[in-house]
Amino acid sequence: MEIKVPETMKAWVLGDPGVLTLEEKPVPKPGRGEVLVKIDAVAICATDLEIIENGPPALIQGGLPFNKNFTPGHEYMGRVAALGEGVDEYKIGDRVAVEIHAGCGRCERCREGMYTSCLNYGQNYPGHDKGHRANGFTTDGGFAEYAINNVNTLCHVGDDVSDEVATLIVTAGTAMYALDTVAGLVAGQSVVVSGPGPIGLMAVAVAKALGANPVILTGTRDNRLELGKKLGADYTINVREKDVVQTVKELTGGEGVHYVVECSGAPNAVNEATSMVKRGGRVVLAAFPKKQVEVDVAALVRNNISLFGIRGEGRSAVHRAASLISEGRFDASLIHTHTFEFDELLTALKYSRERIDDAIKVVVKMPK
Amino acid sequence: MEIKVPETMKAWVLGDPGVLTLEEKPVPKPGRGEVLVKIDAVAICATDLEIIENGPPALIQGGLPFNKNFTPGHEYMGRVAALGEGVDEYKIGDRVAVEIHAGCGRCERCREGMYTSCLNYGQNYPGHDKGHRANGFTTDGGFAEYAINNVNTLCHVGDDVSDEVATLIVTAGTAMYALDTVAGLVAGQSVVVSGPGPIGLMAVAVAKALGANPVILTGTRDNRLELGKKLGADYTINVREKDVVQTVKELTGGEGVHYVVECSGAPNAVNEATSMVKRGGRVVLAAFPKKQVEVDVAALVRNNISLFGIRGEGRSAVHRAASLISEGRFDASLIHTHTFEFDELLTALKYSRERIDDAIKVVVKMPK
Amino acid sequence: MEIKVPETMKAWVLGDPGVLTLEEKPVPKPGRGEVLVKIDAVAICATDLEIIENGPPALIQGGLPFNKNFTPGHEYMGRVAALGEGVDEYKIGDRVAVEIHAGCGRCERCREGMYTSCLNYGQNYPGHDKGHRANGFTTDGGFAEYAINNVNTLCHVGDDVSDEVATLIVTAGTAMYALDTVAGLVAGQSVVVSGPGPIGLMAVAVAKALGANPVILTGTRDNRLELGKKLGADYTINVREKDVVQTVKELTGGEGVHYVVECSGAPNAVNEATSMVKRGGRVVLAAFPKKQVEVDVAALVRNNISLFGIRGEGRSAVHRAASLISEGRFDASLIHTHTFEFDELLTALKYSRERIDDAIKVVVKMPK
Amino acid sequence: MEIKVPETMKAWVLGDPGVLTLEEKPVPKPGRGEVLVKIDAVAICATDLEIIENGPPALIQGGLPFNKNFTPGHEYMGRVAALGEGVDEYKIGDRVAVEIHAGCGRCERCREGMYTSCLNYGQNYPGHDKGHRANGFTTDGGFAEYAINNVNTLCHVGDDVSDEVATLIVTAGTAMYALDTVAGLVAGQSVVVSGPGPIGLMAVAVAKALGANPVILTGTRDNRLELGKKLGADYTINVREKDVVQTVKELTGGEGVHYVVECSGAPNAVNEATSMVKRGGRVVLAAFPKKQVEVDVAALVRNNISLFGIRGEGRSAVHRAASLISEGRFDASLIHTHTFEFDELLTALKYSRERIDDAIKVVVKMPK
Repeated sequence: MEIKVPETMKAWVLGDPGVLTLEEKPVPKPGRGEVLVKIDAVAICATDLEIIENGPPALIQGGLPFNKNFTPGHEYMGRVAALGEGVDEYKIGDRVAVEIHAGCGRCERCREGMYTSCLNYGQNYPGHDKGHRANGFTTDGGFAEYAINNVNTLCHVGDDVSDEVATLIVTAGTAMYALDTVAGLVAGQSVVVSGPGPIGLMAVAVAKALGANPVILTGTRDNRLELGKKLGADYTINVREKDVVQTVKELTGGEGVHYVVECSGAPNAVNEATSMVKRGGRVVLAAFPKKQVEVDVAALVRNNISLFGIRGEGRSAVHRAASLISEGRFDASLIHTHTFEFDELLTALKYSRERIDDAIKVVVKMPK
Repeated sequence: MEIKVPETMKAWVLGDPGVLTLEEKPVPKPGRGEVLVKIDAVAICATDLEIIENGPPALIQGGLPFNKNFTPGHEYMGRVAALGEGVDEYKIGDRVAVEIHAGCGRCERCREGMYTSCLNYGQNYPGHDKGHRANGFTTDGGFAEYAINNVNTLCHVGDDVSDEVATLIVTAGTAMYALDTVAGLVAGQSVVVSGPGPIGLMAVAVAKALGANPVILTGTRDNRLELGKKLGADYTINVREKDVVQTVKELTGGEGVHYVVECSGAPNAVNEATSMVKRGGRVVLAAFPKKQVEVDVAALVRNNISLFGIRGEGRSAVHRAASLISEGRFDASLIHTHTFEFDELLTALKYSRERIDDAIKVVVKMPK
Repeated sequence: MEIKVPETMKAWVLGDPGVLTLEEKPVPKPGRGEVLVKIDAVAICATDLEIIENGPPALIQGGLPFNKNFTPGHEYMGRVAALGEGVDEYKIGDRVAVEIHAGCGRCERCREGMYTSCLNYGQNYPGHDKGHRANGFTTDGGFAEYAINNVNTLCHVGDDVSDEVATLIVTAGTAMYALDTVAGLVAGQSVVVSGPGPIGLMAVAVAKALGANPVILTGTRDNRLELGKKLGADYTINVREKDVVQTVKELTGGEGVHYVVECSGAPNAVNEATSMVKRGGRVVLAAFPKKQVEVDVAALVRNNISLFGIRGEGRSAVHRAASLISEGRFDASLIHTHTFEFDELLTALKYSRERIDDAIKVVVKMPK
Repeated sequence: MEIKVPETMKAWVLGDPGVLTLEEKPVPKPGRGEVLVKIDAVAICATDLEIIENGPPALIQGGLPFNKNFTPGHEYMGRVAALGEGVDEYKIGDRVAVEIHAGCGRCERCREGMYTSCLNYGQNYPGHDKGHRANGFTTDGGFAEYAINNVNTLCHVGDDVSDEVATLIVTAGTAMYALDTVAGLVAGQSVVVSGPGPIGLMAVAVAKALGANPVILTGTRDNRLELGKKLGADYTINVREKDVVQTVKELTGGEGVHYVVECSGAPNAVNEATSMVKRGGRVVLAAFPKKQVEVDVAALVRNNISLFGIRGEGRSAVHRAASLISEGRFDASLIHTHTFEFDELLTALKYSRERIDDAIKVVVKMPK
């Protein structure tokens, strides 16, 4: 197969904070170990909204992304359009989903397998190019017709997975990393997921697929909690109706759960999670409040509790999540609610931001 | 060797909060798998002061310890005076130091080796006796002539280790657990210890003995920081004189350290620790502030940072710490500052509480 | 509920090697932390056959079990008939399955959670009673109407699980331990299971339930391989028809698999496993040949390969396996092929030993 | 500082098996992320002798190294002479020691931090250049005036470390990896090192520096065992004089040791190691016999024992070992016995191969 790559492409470009315009840009050329992806679909993440307004949630050595011709978007999928030097893991036309982070491969963290903690994070600009990429965060992302990916950050997608679902693989990878890499042995153990947003719902689905029992989802909106049940939650708790800590205790024989995956970012979420895990338990933080919050540090110490901040995926979890999805272990399509055309991106962002029509995952598709 | 055990003994008993009196109590009898220890020396820990005033820092199922004939004290050493059924790991007369926690051995946490997180914590009273012991916390401790220890919670002490130093082995065990069990690979990696109290100073000594490099101690009192240097700190930072985060960064090539062991309990300690570790780093919390504190949860998530609350020792760290001390890897005696007679316990507690004469570890010795 | 416990019971007793007779024995009394189980069903394991002929596959400090009134059998289930002192985790009448090993709870290995490696293994006899139990190995087992279990070694079984399937939970626990505790991250990773005996077939089922992909089963008998497919194997290889190493490589893009779970005990199994895992891979040994075998140690070193011997379950894997089975994640009943009455045990053993009628799991049931 | 780099250099080149000749070669140019090292000293390893005779002990995709202009040698040190694109971690003139393996950074193993298990091992030749380097194994090494190193594979060396000792850092790194990364918690635990060759002696020194207690060295030559004592062994056992297994048991209260680091490659070494570790113990294989050997697989399974093949260093252990050496934690110079000039390499190799004058580490130095 061959894919004819043009010289220029359409891409959404970030100007002043909050201002995205559709422009014509050169199609980038894949370097050594890189791949050019022709994008078929891209989903919108809350982080995209954040980046467009405020810049990425981590230091960019080269400065903030405004008015620098930056293209955001990180949850995309498509087909391999061109191969950089030395790439034979993929061939032209292969259908692929993406992972966000390509570490520099040379720092201490990358050498210990923690490429999402790369010490050269953001160092991919003239004068300081250590090769790190976080597409849509510090390097150009997927709100465009084409994007560059390090070969590390691709995984194959079979024809039985729709474009829309394929855009969600990276979210499933984050849930997977939270659960089986960070939390621990999950099968037959109990998990609370707090917050039924896209990551929380995906965490429910992945936890159940991995054998967690029970899986308890907490949140404020009944329709989201219902969706969580369809994705595998054994119990749901509407925190506006019940004392969430007490209810979790009741559901677990008084002891609390093995793990909490915190996906709400609510101000009281850390303390509640600490109260819901049993002694010696683990809390994985996949979301965070905008401001500092009060934390009961004494409770962590007295009860031997650990908190793990995670910035997205890691440890090839995206590849493993893609395997679960390709085997149909859960129906990720339930999380996808709306589809727009590529040139309707601004509307799509609005749906996502304002949760219009109860939007969860909003996907933008390229014209075929 | 034989040790004649009397029927009764002198023991300090907790009445109302803050009130300790010296009384005559029956010498307890070791049960199956237990050992009676004739105490030679006992050190005072800040937790003892806390327990005497407020009760133990964890739920006691049977209620608070006031006016229940409870004897506190957990950092003791002595000689084996009698063996319970089935004990052949020790013989009468053996010199021993102690570890605090004996798990129930039957809960899920004990079965996975986390006996300090025993789910039957405190369940050692009539009607709910699952065999858990936390001597000086939930079961009678060492401010007495004799104490019972589960055979699990003893370790041999050689004659070349003084009584005073032997009382510090349990503190060294907590430092050891924080470092090589929880933090990770320490040799050749960088560590900040915040807070030059007894645990902090011991953490400095153990970190250096394990090959950490550099070891940085932070605190407010120059004489304590000086002592830290003698125990192995490569650098010390007086936080009243310097910006501690910036100084740590400067000392570590801008990246921060691999691990922080937080031993100060200061309100801003968690946030400072989060700022001092490099991306992907670990913070071990061995102390805590009395109130809830503001924590920058976003910084944990963005930088893949983990926080580990630890309640004392674990994973046989006390045994391993005893080995370091018996080999003379560091001079634990520097941490011991004052000695009192057993009937001077109230004075000893006062020295410890008020840091009279810059007291660090105050030890009470039995008449020989 | 109440269960009336008689003074004596029927039990199969081991005389000379190979000689089992049905006798009348006193019903044992549960001690502190122990439970009396009224047995409803017990499955036969290859290890039972081995023990009956040759004694248990590990040192028994008190000597071999012949002519000592020993009752073998370790894969049983039933109902709680009486509670020892201090047991409130179960109540009379509860339906339970068992785990084999109760560690002493006091040795170094038990304290680190490795109770199957208890350093007081087999020490549960007058004069050396450290409380270790390996029911059916070193303490009386389940070819009897009643058996004693440490509370540690029980797990609840719901009414929707048949007696026959409940006897298989311990086998599932071994498979689980091999996979998610010892091997590593399994979901989305590739596994070869060699040997389609009961453990091998269960390993296939558990691996697939945990999300392994692909799961490849190797063996010599087509009907067993077919059964493996029903339990979740993606591919099967009849090693008499194909080069097994080459076929595994072809199925995995030339690299080999992440993990091999060796359940055949074949003489060339270790070397083949070493050749089938990719560089840095792990091989879990759940079976072993009767004699020493030639091993290519150089291949282990050159390719960073690890071998893990496992003696049955561990890390509460039996509890977690029970969860998978109660949720219907796979159909364990496919592994059960024959049922006999309790007084037909000798016939049942013969079916199991000689694989009469292609017997896989043979279960003996008590009259109700 | 500036180092003038000539166009050509002297380098030893491998012709037919066993034939090394000193030739003039172009000085290589560092690529992106690479560094040119001007070599000051290089030590000889048993693997060098093996490679020169038989090729490297792992598949080279591009074929064996004979008559391909290949320069062996992997234990070298020197100064940074030129920097490839994007390198700012080092500056010209920096004194450096080396680590052998630079993973491709893109395969699954590299992404999980196991760069010594890189799935693109040896793939660094025209047509298949994935960037993997194993200098002196699959890419040009240190028997030359200059060599290329990936920036990953360098570590700083202070002026207080001699050239000779600096060449040994990579060996110390292998010992370190075996101990604190693969074996486990070492401080206060017991270790047998079998085989007092360079790696074995270094393992003794590192084990003791990390706090292992006791450290037991086994071997056949008394002078080597004596040297082991100087490096930190608490006990030595001449296996020709004593039953090594029984003696280890006696020294460890009958239980055996926590870990064995096998550095002898003797045919019976694996079985002996299995007999010397306690139940649940770990054996790290850092050497191997030339042929397959008989292994008692049943003993591994019955006793929950793990075997870990390791091909050299990993997990930045070389950096951490360099820290121990720079802090003077042990006297690595004791392992260095002979020094030759660069043009005397063939004599140096002969000393090393035939252990002339009891040669241990033979170092070749460049004229200054």
